[in-house]
Amino acid sequence: MSTPSPMLKEQLLTLDNPVFCCYLFWATVLVVKMLLMSLLTALQRFRYKIFPNEEDLFFKNIEVQFDDPHVERVRRAHRNDMENILPYFIMGLIYLSTDPNPTVACNLFRVAAVARILHTLVYAVYPVPQPSRILAFATMLLITFYMAAVVALRTLSFI
Amino acid sequence: MSTPSPMLKEQLLTLDNPVFCCYLFWATVLVVKMLLMSLLTALQRFRYKIFPNEEDLFFKNIEVQFDDPHVERVRRAHRNDMENILPYFIMGLIYLSTDPNPTVACNLFRVAAVARILHTLVYAVYPVPQPSRILAFATMLLITFYMAAVVALRTLSFI
Amino acid sequence: MSTPSPMLKEQLLTLDNPVFCCYLFWATVLVVKMLLMSLLTALQRFRYKIFPNEEDLFFKNIEVQFDDPHVERVRRAHRNDMENILPYFIMGLIYLSTDPNPTVACNLFRVAAVARILHTLVYAVYPVPQPSRILAFATMLLITFYMAAVVALRTLSFI
Repeated sequence: MSTPSPMLKEQLLTLDNPVFCCYLFWATVLVVKMLLMSLLTALQRFRYKIFPNEEDLFFKNIEVQFDDPHVERVRRAHRNDMENILPYFIMGLIYLSTDPNPTVACNLFRVAAVARILHTLVYAVYPVPQPSRILAFATMLLITFYMAAVVALRTLSFI
Repeated sequence: MSTPSPMLKEQLLTLDNPVFCCYLFWATVLVVKMLLMSLLTALQRFRYKIFPNEEDLFFKNIEVQFDDPHVERVRRAHRNDMENILPYFIMGLIYLSTDPNPTVACNLFRVAAVARILHTLVYAVYPVPQPSRILAFATMLLITFYMAAVVALRTLSFI
Repeated sequence: MSTPSPMLKEQLLTLDNPVFCCYLFWATVLVVKMLLMSLLTALQRFRYKIFPNEEDLFFKNIEVQFDDPHVERVRRAHRNDMENILPYFIMGLIYLSTDPNPTVACNLFRVAAVARILHTLVYAVYPVPQPSRILAFATMLLITFYMAAVVALRTLSFI
C-alpha cells in the first residue's frame, strides 16, 4: 500500500485496488456508526419517554413531546453526521477515482473515520468541554476540503 | 441473474452487470421517493398555510409559523429518509463492488426499496398504528447492517 | 466533449471520460458549498451568541438558546441542501454510468450546481423575494427527475 505503483485507471474502483478496499472498510464503519445514532435516539426516547408521534405512545398517560434535551442532543449529533459524513462519502469516492497517493489516501480515510467516532463520543454519548468536539469536527472537515482541492485541481479544465 | 457466474471485477460497476442494473433501478426509485417528500412538505405548507420564511407568505394576513403537526410529520419522515436511505445508497454501492451473490443482492435491493416506500406511506401519508412503521424502518436498517458485515469481513485486512 | 463517441463501458467511471471529470468538478464544488453551510451556521451562532449546548457557551452570562431566526434560516437552507444535493450526487453518478449524451450530461451538471449556489445566496446569504428561491430549487429538482427517468427507462427490465 505504501508503494504508489501506477495502476490501470479501470481498476481503481475494484477490490484489486488496496486504497479502494481501505475506503470500503472505513466507509462501512462510518455507515454503521451513523445507523447506530438512530438506535441511540430510540434508546433515549424510551428512557425518557419522549415520543413525537401519537402512534408512538407506548406507555400510558403520556403525550407527544418535543425538545427534550437528552433526545435533542443525540439528534443534533446525528444531524451533524449527515451534514459532514454524507458529503464526505461522495468526496472520498471521487478523490479515490483520481488515483491519489495510496499512503496519503489510506491515512486520510483512517483519521477521518476515527475523528467522527470521537465526535460522536464527546457529543452524544458523554459530553465533555470544548474544544474536543470542535477539533473532532474540524478534522473531517479539513480532510474533505483537502480532497476537494486535489480533485478540483485535477478536473479544473472540465469546468 | 440467478446464476452467480464469475465476472471480471472491472465490469462490476457497468451496465453489463445485471446486479448493478438492479441497484440502479431501485436506487432511482428511492431518489424519486425522497424528492417527492419535498413536494409533499410543500403541499402541506400550502394546505395549512404554514410558512417558515417571511418571503414565503403567499397569502395575506398570515405570519411565519412553525411546529404545525401536519407539516412536521412529513418533515420527520423526510429526515428519517435522509438518515437511512442516504447511507444505504453508499452501502449498496460498496456492497455491489465486492461482487456479492447476484440473487441475494437483487432481492435485498428490492426488499429495502419496498420497505422504505411502505415506511413513507404509514408515516407521512396515512398514519397507522405501530409496529408497522418500526417494521418498515427495521427492514432497511437490517439490510444495511448485513451489507456492512459482508463488506467489513471482505476488507478487514485493509484496516 | 461534444462528440458522443462510443466508449467502452468499463471506462465510464474513470478520468479518461470527460463527462466523469465534469461530474467530479461540479460535485466537488457542491460538496465544498455544503460544508461552507456549517461554517456559515457557526458564524451566525457566534455573531448572535446563540448556542444549543451547555459546553458551547463561549461567552459569559449566556444560556443555551434555540429558534433564533438568523441561525435557523441558515440551518433550513443547509437542510434543504441535504434533501436535494445528496440524492443528486447518487443520481448523477448513476446517470453517468448509463453512458448519457456527453453534451447533455455536462450541461446538466453545470446548471444544477449553479442553481444550488444561487439557492444558497437567495436563501441564506441575502434573502430576496420569491419566486427566486423556488426557481433555483426547482432547477436541480427537475434535473434530478430527468436523470431518474433516463435511468429508470434503461434499467426497467431489471426490476
